[in-house]
Amino acid sequence: MTRFDSLSLTFNDQGLVPVIAQDHVSGEVLMLAWMNAEAVAQTLETKKVTYWSRSRQAFWVKGETSGHVQTLVDLRVDCDRDCLLAVVEQVGPACHTNRRSCFYTSVVDGAERELMKPES
Amino acid sequence: MTRFDSLSLTFNDQGLVPVIAQDHVSGEVLMLAWMNAEAVAQTLETKKVTYWSRSRQAFWVKGETSGHVQTLVDLRVDCDRDCLLAVVEQVGPACHTNRRSCFYTSVVDGAERELMKPES
Repeated sequence: MTRFDSLSLTFNDQGLVPVIAQDHVSGEVLMLAWMNAEAVAQTLETKKVTYWSRSRQAFWVKGETSGHVQTLVDLRVDCDRDCLLAVVEQVGPACHTNRRSCFYTSVVDGAERELMKPES
Repeated sequence: MTRFDSLSLTFNDQGLVPVIAQDHVSGEVLMLAWMNAEAVAQTLETKKVTYWSRSRQAFWVKGETSGHVQTLVDLRVDCDRDCLLAVVEQVGPACHTNRRSCFYTSVVDGAERELMKPES
């Protein structure tokens, strides 16, 4: 059994790994964001999914201000150890546009089609 | 209706966007890889999911040598236009380790646990 060490991941030149958040029940892909080693460790410890905000250059405990928290159900590492999959319980919309998922635009026959509306 | 232009995406400083591949039936997240604008355009045109290999610095038509092809079912753009979700039909394993998904390692109580074996 290998102990998991967040420092064993392969980070990009900004010290980050991409993290895919997936709904633990529906399997829906909700969003992609980034973590540094400390955010990975905090997420595992607190079970509150915590990203690194590249725009604010600060930790971002998902839902801390909006209430749209993500509770960690399972964290998975990919074969190259340079990407994570966070299986989560998502309260409300995951997207800052108030939609359940950030992936609400589909490309159909060369045109963009909106798949879901913001929640009210 | 907005025409989709792959050049309208937000690429990183290497000209790439991360792409999540998801099984169109099971919803399983299979892998994450990268595309440049040309790979996005080729994928839409051919329906054969085509990445940009960062290690080989070349186009990578998924499954071209292994036979484990990904056929595009739907391509989705996220709210920030800097990440894509490719909903795909996957033949055989998506992972180069011969597992269905690259995310076969789970972190449970601080230890790594293998969730699936290579297909034979």
